[in-house]
Formats: sequence, C-alpha cells, structure tokens
Amino acid sequence: MKIACLAGDGIGPEIMAEAKKVLAALDIAGIETADADVGGVAYRNHGHPLPPETLELCKAADAVLFGAVGDPACDNLERHLRPEQAILGLRQALTLFANLRPATMFAGLEDMSALRPEVARQIDLLIVRELNGDVYFGEKAIRTLPDGRRQGFDLMSYAEDEVRRIAHVAFRAAQGRGKRLCSVDKANVLETSQLWRDVVIEVSAEYPDVELSHMYVDNAAMQLVRNPGQFDVVVTGNLFGDILSDQASMCVGSIGLLASASLGETQTAFGTKGLYEPIHGSAPDIAGQGKANPMAMILSLAMLLRHSLGLDAQAARVEAAVAKALADGVKGADLGGSANCAEIGDAVVARL
Amino acid sequence: MKIACLAGDGIGPEIMAEAKKVLAALDIAGIETADADVGGVAYRNHGHPLPPETLELCKAADAVLFGAVGDPACDNLERHLRPEQAILGLRQALTLFANLRPATMFAGLEDMSALRPEVARQIDLLIVRELNGDVYFGEKAIRTLPDGRRQGFDLMSYAEDEVRRIAHVAFRAAQGRGKRLCSVDKANVLETSQLWRDVVIEVSAEYPDVELSHMYVDNAAMQLVRNPGQFDVVVTGNLFGDILSDQASMCVGSIGLLASASLGETQTAFGTKGLYEPIHGSAPDIAGQGKANPMAMILSLAMLLRHSLGLDAQAARVEAAVAKALADGVKGADLGGSANCAEIGDAVVARL
Ligand SMILES: [Mg+2]
Ligand SMILES: [Mg+2]
Repeated sequence: MKIACLAGDGIGPEIMAEAKKVLAALDIAGIETADADVGGVAYRNHGHPLPPETLELCKAADAVLFGAVGDPACDNLERHLRPEQAILGLRQALTLFANLRPATMFAGLEDMSALRPEVARQIDLLIVRELNGDVYFGEKAIRTLPDGRRQGFDLMSYAEDEVRRIAHVAFRAAQGRGKRLCSVDKANVLETSQLWRDVVIEVSAEYPDVELSHMYVDNAAMQLVRNPGQFDVVVTGNLFGDILSDQASMCVGSIGLLASASLGETQTAFGTKGLYEPIHGSAPDIAGQGKANPMAMILSLAMLLRHSLGLDAQAARVEAAVAKALADGVKGADLGGSANCAEIGDAVVARL
Repeated sequence: MKIACLAGDGIGPEIMAEAKKVLAALDIAGIETADADVGGVAYRNHGHPLPPETLELCKAADAVLFGAVGDPACDNLERHLRPEQAILGLRQALTLFANLRPATMFAGLEDMSALRPEVARQIDLLIVRELNGDVYFGEKAIRTLPDGRRQGFDLMSYAEDEVRRIAHVAFRAAQGRGKRLCSVDKANVLETSQLWRDVVIEVSAEYPDVELSHMYVDNAAMQLVRNPGQFDVVVTGNLFGDILSDQASMCVGSIGLLASASLGETQTAFGTKGLYEPIHGSAPDIAGQGKANPMAMILSLAMLLRHSLGLDAQAARVEAAVAKALADGVKGADLGGSANCAEIGDAVVARL
C-alpha cells in the first residue's frame, strides 16, 4: 500500500509530520510512504507547482495525502505556475470527481458554532459533491445579443453516467455510515435536477440497505440551520455542493478541524484511489512556528485509511483519538488553546 | 391610492381582516380598498384561480395585498387551474421581477432560532432576489446525446438590462435602510455572475451614498450562519436568492412572521407598484378557526405602505406596533402563545 505524501507550502510540512507520526504509531504492515514536492516549493525546486516526478509518484500510489499549497511569494506568477494549480492538475490527472466533506461536531467544541449547542451537538454528516460537471464546467461566455445587449451565460448540465458514478460513491459512503442518503436537487424547476433525481433513484435499486430521500436545495439550506443533525450522507451536484458544504462547515464552526477527500474511479486492491487534504489552507502567516493545528491533516489521514486502504477500524481509531484529545482539552491556538503542532500530534498518538 | 385586497384561501380571509383593521386604524386620507377572489375560492366562484375581474382590479390598483392561496380540494385540477397558478399569473401580468424578503429578529423571539441568541439577535436584513431570469427560466430539457446517454440541461443567463433593473431596486432599498448593499454571485466561476457583477458596479455609480460589496454565494451561505448581523441589503439572482432567502428565514426561525414584496417596473404616483404577501401558506388545517397569526400579513401591509405608497413613517409605525406587541408577549399559537387572530390584530392596533 503506497501513500504519496505531498506536504506543500506554509504549514503543510509541519502538519504532515504529525500525520506521519500518527501513521507510524498505527504500525500497519505493508504501508510505504514517499514524499514529493508540490505547490510553491515545487515551483522553486523544479520550476513547476506539479512537477512530472510528483505526478508520476501520485499515479503509482494507492492514495495521496496532501498538506496545503499557497505561497504569497508566488502571487505574481502566471496563473498556470501558481501553487493552487497543482491541486487542479492532480484532480484532472487522477480523474477525481467526488469530493467528500465530513462535518462533525466534536464534544467540547460546541462553543465554536454559531448554532445553539443543543443543535450543533447533533452534527455528524458527510457531503458528497460532484466535482467535474454542472454549471461550473459547461459552455460559458459573455456575449453580445443581436439587439446589442450584453448577456452572460453558463450551461448547467449532467449526463446520466456522471450522476451514476457520484451516486455510487454516495451510496457506498452511506453504507459505511448511518445508511441514510439524502439527494439534494431542484427537480421542481431544473431539468438537470430531474435527470439527477431519476438516475439516483435508478442507482438506489443496487443499495436496498440504504434509505434514500430527496430534498430541494433551498430546503436543504434551511434544514442545515434548523436541524443539521437530521442528515447522514448528502449527495449533490457541483454548485449546490459548493454552497452546502461550506454552509455545513460553518455550522460546525471549527473550520481548522475539517478534512476532505477527493475520489476517482480507480479502484486499488484495497479501496478507491483518492486524494486527502484538510480544507484549511497553507496559512503562511504562521508557517514554521509550530503553531498550526494538525488535527484536520490527521483526520484526512483517517479518511485515506478508510476510503483508499479499506482500513475502517484503523480510521475509526484515529478519529476516536482526535476526539479524545479534544475532549481532554488538547487544543491549538485556533481553538483558543495553547498546544503546539507537535504536542497535538503526540497527544493524538498517546490516545490511539 | 387604491389597494386591491386578495384574501384567497385557507387562513387568507381571517389574516386579511386583521390587516384591514390595522389599515383602517391608520386612518390615511385617500386610501381605497377593493376586494376580489383569488385561488381556490376564485375557481369555485368564477371557474378560474385568477379571474379576469380580479386581474383588472389588480392592474388598476397601486398595490396588491395578497393573503394566501392553496386548497387541498383543488389538488386534482389541471395545473393551470390550481390556486397556486394565480400568483404566477399575477407576477406575469404585473411584470413583477423583484422579490424583497426581509428577515428581522424581533426582540423576545430569539428562542425561535437555531442560532445562538447573541447571533440571532443581530439579524435585520433584506434579500432582494431577481425573479424572472436565471437558470430557472432558460432553455431546458432532458435530451439524448448522440452517443445515447441521457443528459439534463438548463441554460443560466442574465442580460445587462435584467441585472440593471434589479440592481436599481436593491440600491433604492438600501437607501431606505442602512445604506449597505452586498451583491452575491459566483463571479470566480460563472460568466453570468461576472456580467452581474460588472453591471451592479456600473449601476453603483448612481448611488454614491450606498456602500457596495460583493460576496461569493458559498461564502454568503457561511456568513448567514456565522454572523447574519453583518448584512443590510443583499441582492442576488433567482437561484442564489431562492436558497439564501430561505436560509435567512430559517436563521430568524419564526417563519410565520415573515412578509414579502414583489415589485415591478411600474411606478405609481407614490412609489413602485407591487404585490405583498406573507411567506407562509394558506394553512388549510387551521383555516376558519381564528388560530392564524396575522402578523406576517400585517407586516406585508407595512411593506406595501413603504414601497408602493411612499408612506415610510406609517410603515415604520406598523412595524413598531408589531414589535411592541411581540415584546409584550402577544403571541399566536405558532410562537407558543395563546392569542387568537383577532386578538393579535387588536393588540397591534392598540400599539400603533
Ligand atoms: Mg465553496
Ligand atoms: Mg426557496
């Protein structure tokens, strides 16, 4: 089982070091890791944010553990050389089409949420967002109409195979959780959504153990405020997923703790090939000072163990150790605590 | 000044009666009201949910005060004869393109919100949503691609004149409030949004007293959870407005208190012609029992006084009386109180 470790820029290296510490402590037989440069550091060392050797390593690996990219010193580079392009390049090269964003409230952190503690405490959901289609990738332009008016347009669309593959990812994720899947669309108005709904219902026949429901996106935005605890797994398109996953993150409040996965179609011997990264950025302002909170990175490792390596029990062990550390008051500066990066990593290892 | 009063179905007549009571108590010189049937009751009396005589009355009026439509007895009618079609017909006939949805937290009702009281207490915003364009009204279909796959598609678009007229409504609304306007789009990905943003910036030159900002829709969904008190007026397109206005309503919690306005291009001698209605429905289950809370209807009247009749001071007087009644504990069953419909109307009148 090969994991490509791409620490990247800013706080990337320090949080990656703690994730590796946790991985080593799990002492799983047959795991190999290999490092490669990505982002601004890759540009400086190799002239490109995603050098060929990094890409080859990722292609050969079963999973990619990704820190963060982004470096103010690179802001004046041409767009294709900027650090952020590395993640887009990886998504494309590895054909990653499914973005998984868990939003979970950890005990003791209810104060981080703008929601009432009794509402926030219930949050334990996973948003599965389609990443390659929808109105973000359709034909688009600003054009001049025959009558001289300017018009902006973007074509929203989904084809049935695009919906089918993300639906399978979502149903499988639901099987590994609470076995409830809510598909979010706007089928009362949009034909794209009507096809989405039709195909999700077709796919549901293969997952009789998962309870499927449907919700309009405006209602979903309401329900995420009123009672986010009602959701287990949510599956939706690229645009609605962009909005709802950010809303759900904010419902939790502690953005610094949130992990994510991007999965593709490639099956490894152990699961689905994917890329795993914290949703926070490279935080150049605190880089190299040991102040970063590595928990989102460690939770990204847990997702990697679950989805790419089929090691559910080990994943749950890591997540429980993080929850225990938080419950014991081990908090980084982002949570109002004083633990530094290595101390947090050690605290998680001690609770494995 | 002529107001067409369309009480409609279910609780419509009882809440309309209380709004008229308030209007009478204001004793404004020169106001005439006229009633007409709409919705299920209109279908039963005239064979159509929006009879020609109702439409003519609305066309001749300066404003339309609308109760609610919807009647389970009409569920089996052909679509064009269903009560809900009346509101679509009125929007079209009166060319209403701007939907105004205030979300305001009234003192004493913080417990209705899932947000922490200190967060919820700050909510006092107005969402201005474009109602006639965007991906809801573009070319759309489910088609079979040349390779045999089914595809759903919907064309998102805005032309500059469509953006310009909603921007003017929003800037004018901001002038009447806190003079801050936040335009919500997704201009980093969508060309429709880029044109939207360009035109809003062009229009802003005519409103130097209003501070304009821009926000991406995913961030807006986050900020409505984290700190909804930061917003004064928000302007956005049809799809994003659909999502965000419902989310904002839920942030307030007490949906039964929310009013709305739909404005068109027609200027009356006193303001902008429009249609005003509570966002709650006809609630057939409690109709005719005097249990309905007429506050959203009364607040809709206040919006009518402000936007169509130019009577800002009277509008503020009505809103203050509603707030006072709530602060004094006058609450309907929907808010956990015991005041009936007429008692609530009387309580508001007593506090004018
Ligand atoms: Mg987003
Ligand atoms: Mg809606």
